[in-house]
Order: sequence, then C-alpha cells, then structure tokens
Amino acid sequence: MTRSHAHAADPRRAVGWIGLGRMGLPMATHLVKAGIPVVAWNRSPKEAPEGTVRLAASPAEAASAGIVFTMLADDAATEAVLPAILEGLPEGGIHVAMSTLGVSFSRSLAERHAARGQRFVAAPVFGRPDAAQAAKLRIVVAGPPAAKEAVRPFLARLGEAIFDVGEEPHLAHAVKLGGNFLIAGMLEALSEAYVFVDKLGVSREAFYEVLTAFFRSPVYDNYGRILLERRFDPPGFQLRLGLKDVRLIARAADEALVPLPLAALLLDRYREAAANGLAEEDWTAILKRVEAAAGLVR
Amino acid sequence: MTRSHAHAADPRRAVGWIGLGRMGLPMATHLVKAGIPVVAWNRSPKEAPEGTVRLAASPAEAASAGIVFTMLADDAATEAVLPAILEGLPEGGIHVAMSTLGVSFSRSLAERHAARGQRFVAAPVFGRPDAAQAAKLRIVVAGPPAAKEAVRPFLARLGEAIFDVGEEPHLAHAVKLGGNFLIAGMLEALSEAYVFVDKLGVSREAFYEVLTAFFRSPVYDNYGRILLERRFDPPGFQLRLGLKDVRLIARAADEALVPLPLAALLLDRYREAAANGLAEEDWTAILKRVEAAAGLVR
Amino acid sequence: MTRSHAHAADPRRAVGWIGLGRMGLPMATHLVKAGIPVVAWNRSPKEAPEGTVRLAASPAEAASAGIVFTMLADDAATEAVLPAILEGLPEGGIHVAMSTLGVSFSRSLAERHAARGQRFVAAPVFGRPDAAQAAKLRIVVAGPPAAKEAVRPFLARLGEAIFDVGEEPHLAHAVKLGGNFLIAGMLEALSEAYVFVDKLGVSREAFYEVLTAFFRSPVYDNYGRILLERRFDPPGFQLRLGLKDVRLIARAADEALVPLPLAALLLDRYREAAANGLAEEDWTAILKRVEAAAGLVR
Amino acid sequence: MTRSHAHAADPRRAVGWIGLGRMGLPMATHLVKAGIPVVAWNRSPKEAPEGTVRLAASPAEAASAGIVFTMLADDAATEAVLPAILEGLPEGGIHVAMSTLGVSFSRSLAERHAARGQRFVAAPVFGRPDAAQAAKLRIVVAGPPAAKEAVRPFLARLGEAIFDVGEEPHLAHAVKLGGNFLIAGMLEALSEAYVFVDKLGVSREAFYEVLTAFFRSPVYDNYGRILLERRFDPPGFQLRLGLKDVRLIARAADEALVPLPLAALLLDRYREAAANGLAEEDWTAILKRVEAAAGLVR
Repeated sequence: MTRSHAHAADPRRAVGWIGLGRMGLPMATHLVKAGIPVVAWNRSPKEAPEGTVRLAASPAEAASAGIVFTMLADDAATEAVLPAILEGLPEGGIHVAMSTLGVSFSRSLAERHAARGQRFVAAPVFGRPDAAQAAKLRIVVAGPPAAKEAVRPFLARLGEAIFDVGEEPHLAHAVKLGGNFLIAGMLEALSEAYVFVDKLGVSREAFYEVLTAFFRSPVYDNYGRILLERRFDPPGFQLRLGLKDVRLIARAADEALVPLPLAALLLDRYREAAANGLAEEDWTAILKRVEAAAGLVR
Repeated sequence: MTRSHAHAADPRRAVGWIGLGRMGLPMATHLVKAGIPVVAWNRSPKEAPEGTVRLAASPAEAASAGIVFTMLADDAATEAVLPAILEGLPEGGIHVAMSTLGVSFSRSLAERHAARGQRFVAAPVFGRPDAAQAAKLRIVVAGPPAAKEAVRPFLARLGEAIFDVGEEPHLAHAVKLGGNFLIAGMLEALSEAYVFVDKLGVSREAFYEVLTAFFRSPVYDNYGRILLERRFDPPGFQLRLGLKDVRLIARAADEALVPLPLAALLLDRYREAAANGLAEEDWTAILKRVEAAAGLVR
Repeated sequence: MTRSHAHAADPRRAVGWIGLGRMGLPMATHLVKAGIPVVAWNRSPKEAPEGTVRLAASPAEAASAGIVFTMLADDAATEAVLPAILEGLPEGGIHVAMSTLGVSFSRSLAERHAARGQRFVAAPVFGRPDAAQAAKLRIVVAGPPAAKEAVRPFLARLGEAIFDVGEEPHLAHAVKLGGNFLIAGMLEALSEAYVFVDKLGVSREAFYEVLTAFFRSPVYDNYGRILLERRFDPPGFQLRLGLKDVRLIARAADEALVPLPLAALLLDRYREAAANGLAEEDWTAILKRVEAAAGLVR
Repeated sequence: MTRSHAHAADPRRAVGWIGLGRMGLPMATHLVKAGIPVVAWNRSPKEAPEGTVRLAASPAEAASAGIVFTMLADDAATEAVLPAILEGLPEGGIHVAMSTLGVSFSRSLAERHAARGQRFVAAPVFGRPDAAQAAKLRIVVAGPPAAKEAVRPFLARLGEAIFDVGEEPHLAHAVKLGGNFLIAGMLEALSEAYVFVDKLGVSREAFYEVLTAFFRSPVYDNYGRILLERRFDPPGFQLRLGLKDVRLIARAADEALVPLPLAALLLDRYREAAANGLAEEDWTAILKRVEAAAGLVR
C-alpha cells in the first residue's frame, strides 16, 4: 500500500489502461494531457496518436504500472484480461474497473484481487462518449478507503463529479445499475407516452414541449429529443449494451430475491428489440418496438 | 362568441367556479385577488372567507356567469354537475375543465356543449396544491381558438406556463394523462430502484445523491426525497387519485388499441396499493408494496 | 312468477330468442327440434329455414313470449335491445342472457328487470360453434331459484352440463369470465412455450406430443393442435371477441381492486394483435405476435 | 459403445445411481426390484434398506458401472459430482441426467463427456414423488441414438411413457422446461382466477367444479384442488425448486433472445414468494401472494 500512496503523490509515474474504445480512449487521453504517462493495451491493435498513450505489449505490462484502469465492454471482456492483470499487478497495486459490471462479478473481482494482496476499486461512470470527451463523466466509486484516496486524483481528471458510495466495490456497480435502470425505465416510459399521445392525435413535438418544461432535466431534454427526431443511428449507446445492462440488473435482482416488474418488462423489451435487428442501433430504438406493438409504421 | 370576447376584455365581470377543494380554492382565490369577481359553487357547503369568492346557490348560477371553470375530483364529479352547467351556461358561453379527465369523457363534453351552442376548453394542470397556492401551475390547454383566447387572461393568473396543444379539447387531456403516466412510471422506477440498491447493501441516501445529480430535475429531487423520507401522510396527491389517473390512461390506451405494458404494470400496482389500505396516503406510497414484494418490512 | 312456472311445464308455449348468429341460430334450432316454438329476432334480417324459428317483427315481440333468451355479441348489442325487452317482457317474465357479458353490466340488467317486476337469469356458455351445433355446450347459470328452475328444461336442450353458481346473476358471468381467463392464459402460455422450444431447436410437433400426454385434456389437445397447424382462419372464435372478453375481465378486476398481472399481460397482447390486423382471425393468432417479438417470421 | 450395448442386453450387470432424494430413491429402487443391481451414492450419507441399492463409496465408483444416472437438485449439485463422474465413467460409458437442468448446462455436459469419449443422455421427468413411487413418470429423452437405445430398458422401469425428442441432449431439457413453464403458467392463472371470482362473490369450490369439467385434465383436477384446499405443506414440489425451474426458463429464453412476458411475470412471482418466506412450501403457495396483492387475508 505504501507504493500506491507514493504513486498517487507522484503523478509522473505511469499508470496502466486497458480498453481504448469510444469511452476508454478519450478518458486515457485526458490523463496524458494532465501529464500522467499512460501505458495502454487494447485487444484489437490500435495506433496511439502522437502525444497520447504509450502502447503496452500485453495487459500484464499495463498492469505492472501499479495502478491499472479497465474500461471494457462487459464482464466477459474483463474476465478475458483478468489473469494477465492478476499476474502483472504488483502486490498492493490497484485495479480500477470503470466499466458497468455485474454485481456478482464485481464481488468476485474484489475477492480474487484480495487473494493476491492486490486492491480493487469500482468506479463505473454515467455519461456517453461526448461526456467522456469533455471530461464531464459522473463517477461512482466504492472500495477500500486508502485505495480510493490513491486513485481520486486520476478520477478527478475524467469527470465532473465523484460519488463515494462505500467500501465494498460492488456497491458502486449496484448504484450504476440502479441508475441505468432509472434511465432505461425512463426510455420505456417516454416511448410508450409518445405512442400513446400520438395515437390520440397529439403531436409528439407538442408533448415534448410539455414534458421537458415539467421535468426540467437535461436527461429528459436529450432523450426526449432523440426519440422525437429518431436519431437511432449512429448510436450514442448501442442497444446491445443496453440489453447487457438490463440483464445485469435482472440478474442482480434475481440473486437478491428482489421482484422488479419494471426490470422484467425492460429485459423483455430489449430482448425483443435485439431479436428484431436493432442491436447495433441506439438503445432508444426500443421506440420502434413500442410503435410496432401499436401497429404504427414509420 | 362576441359576448365572451367582451367578457375577456372586461375582467370586472364575474366568472363562475365549480369545485373549491385543495386545488380549486387557491386557484379561484388568485382570480379574486386579480380583481375578478368569482361566483363559486362547491358540492359540500363551504364558507367563503372574507374577500374571496362569492358563493352561488347552484352550479347553474355559477355557469350563468358566461365563463365557468370546473376543478373537480374526476369524471363522475364533473358529470354530476354537467346538467346544471349545460342549463346555466348561456349560448356562446365557455366551460373550462381544469380537472384531469378521461379522453372519451372530454370528447363527450365537447360534443354536448357544442350541441347547445356552447364552447368547451380543456385546461388540465400539472402541479400539486403547493403549486396551486403559488400560482405556479403548468397548464395544458386545447379548444377552439377564440375560446382559448378568451380564457387565457384567467389561466395566466393561475400558472407560470401555458401550453397550447391544439383545437380539439381532448388533446389537452391526452397530454395531461401522458404526463401523469411519465410521473407514475418514474415513481415505480424510483421505488424499484431504491429497493434494488437497498437489498444489495447501498444506502438509499447515497443512491438519491447520485440520481438527483444525474437527472438534475426538480421533479426527481422532490419525489426522490419524499420516497427517501417516507412522507406518505399527509398526502400531496392521494393514491386513490393516482389510481384514477392510471385507470384513465389505461382506458384511453385500450380504446385507441395501444398496448402499454408499463401502464398495465402501474394499474396493477396502484390497484394493489389501494386494496392494501393505502388509498388515502400519498401516491408515492406504492413504495410500500415494492418493499412488501421483496420481503422488506419497514 | 306463477305464469312462468306454468310456462316451464308447458313446452308447447313459445319462447323468444334474440340473436341468430353462429351460436344463437343452432341453439334456437335445438329448441325447435325439441318441439318448442321459438319466436326469434335478429338485428340484421335473416331468413328462417323451413321448420325452424318463426321470425318476430321486433325484439319486443320476441320478449312478449314470457321467456326470452339473448345470445348477442357483447354488452353494447345487448344494451341496444334492452329497452325493447323491458317493454315487451310481461311482469314475472324471464330474460335469460347467454352471452358473455361484463359483471357490472350483468348487475345492472338484474336491477333494471327487477324494477319492472321481471326476472333475470344469467346463463353464459363454454363452447365454440361446433359445440352449439352438437348441443354440447357447458352452461353456467345463476339467478333467482324459481326462475332458474323455469328455464332449466330449455337449457338442458342446449348443453351437456349445467353448473348452478348462485342466486345473483352476475356470479355466472364472473365464472364465465374466470373460465375464459384460464383459456386465454393457456393460449398465451402455449404460444410462448412453442416459440421458446422452437428457438432452442425442438420441433413444435414433438413438444405438442409431450404436453398433450401430460395434460390429458381435450382443451389442450384442441388448442395445441390449432396453434401447431396455424389454423387461424376461418376463426372458431374471433380475436376481437377474445379481446372483448379479456377487457371485461380486466374491467371487473379493476372494479373489484384485484391486481391480475396475467390479465394485464393478456389485454396488452390482444390489443397488440388487434392493432396489427388480426382482429378477424381466430383468437389463437396471438401466436403471431409472440413470434414477431422473438423475431421469428413464418 | 459395444460395451454399453452389451450392458443393456445384460441386465444382471450393475448400473450406477447418484442422488437418493425423494425422487431418486424410489426410482433406483424400481431398478433393483427389476433385478438390476444398483450401486448408488448420495451426498449426505444414507442407509440403504435391505434388498435395495448397494451404497458406493464415491460418485466415481457409481460411475464406474458404465451407465450412471443422476437425479440431483439442480445444476450446481450436478456440477459438484461431475468431476468424479468424468473420472469414473469408462470410455463409451453413458451418463443419464434425469434432473431438470439448464439448457446451457446440458449443452456443456454433452461437450465435456464427448471430450472424454463418453456419452451423455438427457432424460428429465414429469411427475412428483408419488409418480416416482408408482413408476408412472413421463420421461423426455434426447441424445445419441445408440446411447438412448442402451438406456431405454432402464427408463422403461421408471415411467409409463417415454418421449424421444431428438439427438442433442439439451433438447430434452428444453422440452422439460417448456413443460414446467406451462404448469407454472397454469398455477399463476388458477391463482389469479380463484382470487378474481372470490372477490366478485363466487365460491371457489363452484369455480373449481366448472373449470375441472371444462378442462377434463387430471393436472387441472389435482392442482385446482390443492389450491382450493390450500395444501401447501408438506410440499409435493418445493417452491424454491419451482423458482429454480422458472429461473432456468428465463435464462434459456434470455440466451436465445426470446421475449416471454409470462415467464418474466412468473419469475417475479416466485421470487416474491421466496422473499416472503414461502420457499419451503409447495410451489402452489404463490396463491398467497396473489391474495396478498388483492388485500385478501386468509
């Protein structure tokens, strides 16, 4: 633990980064811009633009930096690099998982790192790629206090707010899933509401004006407009990832014996959308299935 | 129509008001304070405080003022006074229904008034009694253009925003129901989310902080806090009225052949709550049923 | 009441019949074949084949026979002839409603007949047109004991079993709706199960063999086979009538504050099917929507 | 494969049996009574009554007999003995899994046995302990033709019907889950229907008479009566096992991208029941939760 503290105090030392996708690359680049050397690895080979991250030969090399961040698609992609991380990360080192992961999987990561004398911090984020670009993510963090303290300076470069929700890392993933559940529930509600008023003769635009004035929320403004303008492609957040998150919510609820009828409805809805060819569109494209059920063709 | 226009231009002429409940009384009082004489009727006898409304002997007398507002509990309460209004309202007079009414019922009001040469404007409101007190209601209005024009000066005294959604009155009720559907859907989502994170070990307070920072909406702030603090009694909006509104949504969706699984879920939820003794609590008390399903006793 | 008893004892006296559709005509014909003269009325003019019913000029004439049976599409069709029945039926006369009607509507029929000194018996039936042809209907009956006694000899000509469920007529309609709920629930379950096993690679035929051997029920045999062979057209029982019945179940449950999530699901399903052009097919055609949700095209 | 055929032809050679619970013990005993020596293992030590199975020292010993049957609670219990079976079973040997297992897990069993040159047959059963006692199980079988042929004489001693649904073992588990889905769906429908008619004033007994006459199915007779008489304890099939099966259905549907709203509803229902202390009662005890939702206390 000493070394990690030293690390945090000395930002000239490199950190590792695994996952250079649409979220990971801009995030890692923010660290580089702040003068922090980043040793990064991506499953499919990438070129690192001049003045950004330095590419590692393996995930183990990235982990050997002592603090390593992962920003990967899902549990499986994280599991795939885990042996290398467990191998490469020094004792006392810190793995910071910023992806949205399952609650059980998050628990198992904590246990497996602890068994090696390593530390695990969960730090999933709210925000789409534009927020990652703008360093305006909202980060939910949970883990052992000293480890959280050590990584906070890095997280502060990536987002505009950090919420500490406790000492057990899986709590952060539970909060992240709970938040995504609220958003997915809102999308279903908005989709149903648009179709409802539309079939009764109201213009969706007029309805949008009322709802956005009522909720006065940038989230409602944004999603309400995407649904209104049918901007499903290119996706901001792919429907197959939305399906994945809803599935993680349903699984965690199942394991905790929590009946959640809205989550059940959402899982069916995203499954239906994926089975009907919408997996690569934006996750707001569930609107098409709500319309199809009502016999509306657009 | 001439007379009504004249009326609008001459605010010293009295208007009628039917329904002096927790919404209606503060609303009518705002008109009085603006110098507009109000002739009001309430089913159960009320005393009118000095300097407020003048009490009418019958709903017909209130309607005889030429413009009459109704702010009553539901379709049935409105239907109960309708014969008197049809009788008392002069030709060209305007009935402004500010309650949340069913879409079919709203259509039938328009037809019945038209058959008498009278005009019907729907002007349902968003906002709880505190918003009515503060003249901060948000009003959705639909109806014939000249009639809307005539009543706009009055509506402007009652709310902070007016949304005109068309010429057919029932469109305003469709928008109002669509909006309440979004709120009820949000309450179900919030209730499920609180129980979900709670059972996984997260403090509800911590979750509230994250969600409110994410949505940045006074509506989420307010309802999120009511649910957190379990302020179900005294009610801001009684659960039996929430059940009524969800029922109106389900009925309108049924008549328009729109499948709305979330609305179906909500109708079951409010019915369950009412069947378990929660009808007179705040409509956020559905949280208790979400907890009961998960075996949580508070 | 004396007269009615006399009537029952003297089958040479005519009875009235209203509704000569795919159920009503074969039913009325069975009475004629048993030597009971039938004075019948149908909304759209029909020719009565030689040796069958005698056509009445009005529903009131049919009702004037002292005992009148109605077999009409729904509440609205029954309400449409009710004034004539109330007018034509003598004091002490009996109206036997054999259609599937709403529970509230059934209650109101009892009250309106009682107010005229007339009697009302509810006698809805289980069975499709082939069962009506074969006099193999299963009849659920409820009403005042003497009135039930008086009509029993007629009912015995129409079905193979009569179930007496009480003295208040609406109880028979509640039982009928409860039964249709079980059948509609079974159709949804069968449809989902076929699609489930199909997508996992099992032949639907093989699954049919297992389920029919397990349930050993002619109802499962029959519906399982219709779904297997996709015999949706011509319909045995039109989907729009299934929608109507599910709606009546949902309404009755709503009025009694009974949350029924399966009924909610069914109402959405039938609404979805109707909104997608399946209203005139057999009510088993909901299978097409279960398949569509799973992305299966047949 | 030769050896196994020889085995089948020579019933004096012993077979292995793993799992001597309320289903497994009577099933193994039927084989012994037919003159087939059975070498059996159970996780918790059991005494084998005189003249029944011979106890093995380990699951590997049971598997070494060449044909081994497993009848265990779930995937986890089967996974727990799998290494021993893979170890003990000779090349060409056959593992016959008679438990209700997950479709993915069933697929993985087939692969893991094939990798060892062993064969895997799925043979899940319909029937509760009384049917196991009476050798009246209904057995669904799938697997490689020769292996199925080899085990058929044994299966024939355990049940009254065998359904062959294909060559890939997981198909049998898919059929078994599809069947349990129909039963669980029926239980939900029956529970909702009883509560529906009850709240409308109909006696449940009267409703039972009608439904049983209509469906003419021993399954409806049996479950309808259990629900009527509230025989939830001692359980015939424990609710926690029902929850497990519904979960396997939901998981398999999820993996195959099949939206199944009824399965979603059932998973919530069984989860709710388990979270409310009903896990050890009969799985028909979900009736208590349907009643609780309607505010009925029994």
